[in-house]
Amino acid sequence: MRYSQLFTKTLRDAPKDETAKGAQFLIRAGYVHKELAGIYDYLPLGLLVIENIKQIVREELNNIGCQEVLMSTLQNPEPWQKTNRWDIEKMDVWFRTQLAAGGELGLAPTHEEPITNMMRTYISSYKDLPVYVYQFQTKFRNELRAKSGIMRTREFIMKDLYSFCADEKTHNDFYHKAELAYHRIYRRLGIGDDTFQAFASGGVFSKYSHEFQTITTVGEDTIYYNADKSVVLNEEVLNDEVLTELGVKREELKSTKAAEVGNIFTLKTKYSGPLDLKYTDTEGKRRDVIMGCYGIGISRVMGVIAEKYCDNNGLIWPESIAPFKYYLIGIGEQGAEQAEELYQQHTNDILFDDRNLRPGEKFHDAELLGIPYRIVISDRSLEKSEVELTDRRTGETKNIQLTELQKLINQ
Amino acid sequence: MRYSQLFTKTLRDAPKDETAKGAQFLIRAGYVHKELAGIYDYLPLGLLVIENIKQIVREELNNIGCQEVLMSTLQNPEPWQKTNRWDIEKMDVWFRTQLAAGGELGLAPTHEEPITNMMRTYISSYKDLPVYVYQFQTKFRNELRAKSGIMRTREFIMKDLYSFCADEKTHNDFYHKAELAYHRIYRRLGIGDDTFQAFASGGVFSKYSHEFQTITTVGEDTIYYNADKSVVLNEEVLNDEVLTELGVKREELKSTKAAEVGNIFTLKTKYSGPLDLKYTDTEGKRRDVIMGCYGIGISRVMGVIAEKYCDNNGLIWPESIAPFKYYLIGIGEQGAEQAEELYQQHTNDILFDDRNLRPGEKFHDAELLGIPYRIVISDRSLEKSEVELTDRRTGETKNIQLTELQKLINQ
Repeated sequence: MRYSQLFTKTLRDAPKDETAKGAQFLIRAGYVHKELAGIYDYLPLGLLVIENIKQIVREELNNIGCQEVLMSTLQNPEPWQKTNRWDIEKMDVWFRTQLAAGGELGLAPTHEEPITNMMRTYISSYKDLPVYVYQFQTKFRNELRAKSGIMRTREFIMKDLYSFCADEKTHNDFYHKAELAYHRIYRRLGIGDDTFQAFASGGVFSKYSHEFQTITTVGEDTIYYNADKSVVLNEEVLNDEVLTELGVKREELKSTKAAEVGNIFTLKTKYSGPLDLKYTDTEGKRRDVIMGCYGIGISRVMGVIAEKYCDNNGLIWPESIAPFKYYLIGIGEQGAEQAEELYQQHTNDILFDDRNLRPGEKFHDAELLGIPYRIVISDRSLEKSEVELTDRRTGETKNIQLTELQKLINQ
Repeated sequence: MRYSQLFTKTLRDAPKDETAKGAQFLIRAGYVHKELAGIYDYLPLGLLVIENIKQIVREELNNIGCQEVLMSTLQNPEPWQKTNRWDIEKMDVWFRTQLAAGGELGLAPTHEEPITNMMRTYISSYKDLPVYVYQFQTKFRNELRAKSGIMRTREFIMKDLYSFCADEKTHNDFYHKAELAYHRIYRRLGIGDDTFQAFASGGVFSKYSHEFQTITTVGEDTIYYNADKSVVLNEEVLNDEVLTELGVKREELKSTKAAEVGNIFTLKTKYSGPLDLKYTDTEGKRRDVIMGCYGIGISRVMGVIAEKYCDNNGLIWPESIAPFKYYLIGIGEQGAEQAEELYQQHTNDILFDDRNLRPGEKFHDAELLGIPYRIVISDRSLEKSEVELTDRRTGETKNIQLTELQKLINQ
């Protein structure tokens, strides 16, 4: 893409109420625009990051046999009343609205109830199971306080997956597959080394759930872990009973700030029971379907990565989710011509800064935007048929032959 | 995809309140699920159709220099108050909701106000213009009556494009480009021959707007046209003044039912004025930005096509938006084996009905789902190395060599 065609400009300042550093950069670099506290728009570069994250998640979930759907935002109270989650006292994040035709609706904060209810149409026999269904959907949560830019918002993009199985063994097998898929996802997103699967509270129906926690100083959670990180605990399950069961001592654990980037729950019959989602087993008996749910906040992950990977000059995107892999600057007459030629050959990989600005301003924006590699082609570098390639993460610059760069981009 | 992996099943009946034929088929075939009147979920096959429609629209808009964004659903009242559209008496389709932290928000029924308001951050000089921005976004309209399945709903997927220009000439040039892009879009969607650009009321700021109307018996509108369809009018502008201006006589016009599948408006300064979106021109003067807006209801288009292209047995998707191009059935031992082999080579193009059902049931579902081509491979057909290929639209069946079929699929 040509920078000159992008309507966004880098901004000198972020809104004053935006205190998180990554969030400030996301706004200043033109990835997102803040509508209100906890409500953001995704601008062209930001939407590219969101779509890159979604595609990684989609591929890994399709790989383990999941099917993509898109459920409605507007919610009929009925199924939520059956599970006792319509009441604001039971679930305090509801946004409510009134139908002009009469009646109250909610804006979905999550989708266990409607999807369980819908599955009654499609699941009746053991032959219809298992079913694994996910969506990328905009969720609404009426948070009292929105925090840390797009990390905790009132409107956000979430991947939610639901599993429906005939028995616990099938459920446990899938739960394990989902765990592995999640680890692959975080690795591909570039946060694998610092993302840990932590034991968390399981609620009434299961002993534990699992959270995926990414170590970062702006994290809202504290996690506890032993030396080899084989045991990682969320604060809420740090008690003697759990420690004994997991075979670690409190004094062996270190703590760190972390941000939740995903969670997986065994739901058993928590929703299928009250919503009457049953199947007929091989012996003709009616049984409750065994469920699980598996979330990843897509926009939240973008926010966590923005906070985790930035320095004083701007963002530092992992290659796999960067809007573009290369930021191209041409200096001088021949430099500009050669840059134009290179861009034409790789329009999808390159953000070409063809704006009529001084090189210094372009260098500044390249850092702020956090594109992984900066290519500078100047009249001087071309004297040796070379270009300058700078790694945004390490700051290292090397001069390489133009032909070598071509090979690199084609990889 | 293997049908056995799809969680949806074809249903004998649609909900009783679903009277439109196409909508009944969409539900019975497992494309959509009805949550409430005017509120639907998109199931795996339905989401594939939606994504196919979006991709065609995206390609054509990117081609004329548009940039994709994603604006928020939750709306700050302020910009809407400035244009006098927050008031329910002025715009009666608002869904409203209350912030737990205090204050009222709306669910966006359209996005002129927030996008105009946002552009104040990015547009300040003539050098920043023109800007063409679009999104695929879920819109909410508090309709008193929802109608015709997914054609008129309370929650729907819309493509809305907004243009920002320095002067009328640039605006008019882009408006014309958008017209041509819309014609290309409808052609690619398979409704080009029956979709006409009709004059409609322009509101206070412009003489006319244009609607794109697709002829169909379930259409809510009536359009009037002359013999060569060079003049097409929406009912609301059928008056003597307009007829004189367009040089047609009332008695030369025929009428037909049609469904609106898109509209384009010249907005001039209707929103930029009250929202103070100005730019500095080449002489240093501050001027209001000239705007236009351009809508296509993505889920509505899916609904219109479902109504327009169906027969007594089910849906008939145009190839370009069908979830799969081929529906594959194997009969007999060798037939099933050969079908399996064919499927493995073309998993993306084929919906392989590998379910343990009688051939008659599979034929029935193939028609109901409306996949463009049905391939039947049976022991008998294989005796001549042939397969049976049936065109869903014409019903024509021909026997072709397996090798010839391979070539066809690879095209």
